[in-house]
Amino acid sequence: MDSLEGVVLSSLKVISNEKGNIFHALKSSEKSFNTFGEAYFSEITHNSTKGWKKHTRMTMNLVIISGTVRFVLFDDRKFSNTSLKFWEIEIGEKNYKRLTIPPGIYVAFRGIEKRRNLVLNLASIEHDPFESENLNLDEIKYKWE
Amino acid sequence: MDSLEGVVLSSLKVISNEKGNIFHALKSSEKSFNTFGEAYFSEITHNSTKGWKKHTRMTMNLVIISGTVRFVLFDDRKFSNTSLKFWEIEIGEKNYKRLTIPPGIYVAFRGIEKRRNLVLNLASIEHDPFESENLNLDEIKYKWE
Repeated sequence: MDSLEGVVLSSLKVISNEKGNIFHALKSSEKSFNTFGEAYFSEITHNSTKGWKKHTRMTMNLVIISGTVRFVLFDDRKFSNTSLKFWEIEIGEKNYKRLTIPPGIYVAFRGIEKRRNLVLNLASIEHDPFESENLNLDEIKYKWE
Repeated sequence: MDSLEGVVLSSLKVISNEKGNIFHALKSSEKSFNTFGEAYFSEITHNSTKGWKKHTRMTMNLVIISGTVRFVLFDDRKFSNTSLKFWEIEIGEKNYKRLTIPPGIYVAFRGIEKRRNLVLNLASIEHDPFESENLNLDEIKYKWE
C-alpha cells in the first residue's frame, strides 16, 4: 500500500548478541534525520488510542521498541499529491521499522499488544504545545476495527 | 557518592497518563546534549555483562526504559581531578535517570532484572569501531558481586 506524501517507512537493523541484541534507531547521516530537538518515550496501553494530533513544525521519527502499535495517519494537506486521505500501519518489535512523519499530518495511534507498547519519538524540535493541533478522536471519522 | 569528572546523572520527568505514560529522555536545550550522531538500543540479559569499552570521541546519553542496569565506570584519565578510579550506579525504570558519560572513561554494564533490561543511547557521533577501545572484562579488575 502506498504511503502518504513525505511519510517514510525505513527498515532498521537488529544485531543479534547472546548478551543482548542491538537495535538501530536513527543515524544523523540518514535521509530521515532532520534536526535533533528532543527524544521521549510514549507508552500506549492495550486498546487505548491517543490522537488526533497534527504537528505544524515537528518531524517525528518513531520507533517501537516493545509491543506493537497501530498508527493511523490522516492527510488533509491541500498541496498533497497523495490521492488517499488515510493510511494505516502496524509496526513494532516483530516488524521493526522506523516511521518518519513530516509536519501537517494528523496522527492517532493505538496499543495492540497486551504487554507494554512503547514508542520512541526522535523529534526534530522540542515539545511546544503551541505548534500542534489536537482533535478529539471522533472528530476525524475512521473505522478503527 | 561523588561521580567521576564529566559524568552527569540527571533526573528525568515521567508524565502519568491513563492511556500510557510519557518518559522524557533528552532535549537539545539541556546541558547534557552535545550533538546528535545516532540513537540505538542495547539489551543486556539478566546477569550478563558487556564491557569494557572506552570511547575516545563519543559522549553517551544513556536512558534505561525497561528493567535495571548497573553501570561501572573506570577512570584512568591522566588529567582527571577525580580521586576515585571506579564509580558504579544502578539506574532503570524505577530509578529513571539519564547517565551522561564523556569520552575517555571505560564502561561496563550488567543486566540486573530477569525481565528485559533495555538501554537507549543517544550518542553524540555515529558508531565508528575505530574510535572505541575494548578490553576483556577481566582486564580491569572490579569486584562485581
